[in-house]
Amino acid sequence: MVREKVQIVENILNANDQIAEENRVFFDNHGITALNIMASPGAGKTSVILKTIELLSHEIRMAVIEGDTAPVTIDADKISGVNTPVIQINSSGNCHLDALMIRNGLVQMYLQDINLIIIENIGNLICPAAFDLGAHSNVVIASLPEGDDKPYKYPNIYRGIDCLLLNKIDLEPYLDFDLAYFQKGIEALNPGVKIFPVSAKTGEGFDSWISWLQGRIKT
Amino acid sequence: MVREKVQIVENILNANDQIAEENRVFFDNHGITALNIMASPGAGKTSVILKTIELLSHEIRMAVIEGDTAPVTIDADKISGVNTPVIQINSSGNCHLDALMIRNGLVQMYLQDINLIIIENIGNLICPAAFDLGAHSNVVIASLPEGDDKPYKYPNIYRGIDCLLLNKIDLEPYLDFDLAYFQKGIEALNPGVKIFPVSAKTGEGFDSWISWLQGRIKT
Repeated sequence: MVREKVQIVENILNANDQIAEENRVFFDNHGITALNIMASPGAGKTSVILKTIELLSHEIRMAVIEGDTAPVTIDADKISGVNTPVIQINSSGNCHLDALMIRNGLVQMYLQDINLIIIENIGNLICPAAFDLGAHSNVVIASLPEGDDKPYKYPNIYRGIDCLLLNKIDLEPYLDFDLAYFQKGIEALNPGVKIFPVSAKTGEGFDSWISWLQGRIKT
Repeated sequence: MVREKVQIVENILNANDQIAEENRVFFDNHGITALNIMASPGAGKTSVILKTIELLSHEIRMAVIEGDTAPVTIDADKISGVNTPVIQINSSGNCHLDALMIRNGLVQMYLQDINLIIIENIGNLICPAAFDLGAHSNVVIASLPEGDDKPYKYPNIYRGIDCLLLNKIDLEPYLDFDLAYFQKGIEALNPGVKIFPVSAKTGEGFDSWISWLQGRIKT
């Protein structure tokens, strides 16, 4: 019984990996860099994406795939409001996006001239870690109010990522956040991974993140 | 194929509901009130529990079940540090607790004289909503830094709850949090549900929450 369950999960993950690889080939064939952004609810995924669009859209053509568990278009409306192509994927209560959802989303997009697709995953520190979407880079956005112990409590999400944004640093004076303890936790899981302290509210720290991103985009 | 999957999920949920009901009977037979606390990572579940212990332990014998996805005892150590019985359930990467985990935890606890068991669920706004644990009350802790739009984006978690704590109100001067918009979202999902604005850091607002809790405890 347990064994049967495990087999089903393995089949699902294998199927996902294959579709993810097809997505990656599709992106490559179209000269698109794809980014998968994961975070807790409220860490500031959409705010970081909006600030990134503000700073990069004069040189890079971007599009966004918004993952949501509920059929509300709050985030998608914000992206659309800054003249950026966006589609929303409703996961129907599911706790993560998967590669098939991305594939189904891609066929609904007009991808001519797009250089960068940012995928905003479902707000969750657990489930998204297990599902490759076919993105070239996986990024986690942490935030100061969540606390400095998150790498120790939710380790899997930090293991495979290519960089980490630590958002809401403008709140630093009002919180007890031990940056060294946080960094030590990340370093143990993912040695050498780049951490960018930022504030999507004030724009602080975005220059380093934007430089990193520019270095990843095929042009 | 899809139908098969749906059936399996239904079987799991039915089995869970039955065990949850058995847990509830067990709690009743032992004169224990059980509370299931759900929240995002970093909303302040453990801090709220610690403050509740500080304010209630002189009159109520409490115990805590700590749910974690990783085998670290950060939160359990904090509870143990204030002389409160605690056991930790490691969900092995799973995104929620279930009724069977609680049952397996209960047999490891010394329950003599305990009046209140607080279950700290896995930090997640999606998965825990689907699994009845057998608690008498389900509570969500939201927090100001997460943003006022969470009821609209993660509706399921707010539907079945008995009350909501809105934590970190000490950060209110530094955030753009529209309380009326948040309340409107909660009210639409769960009419009349009680909302307690609190700060686990300063203790503000805890008097109302403690009164509510006292009214629920069998003595």
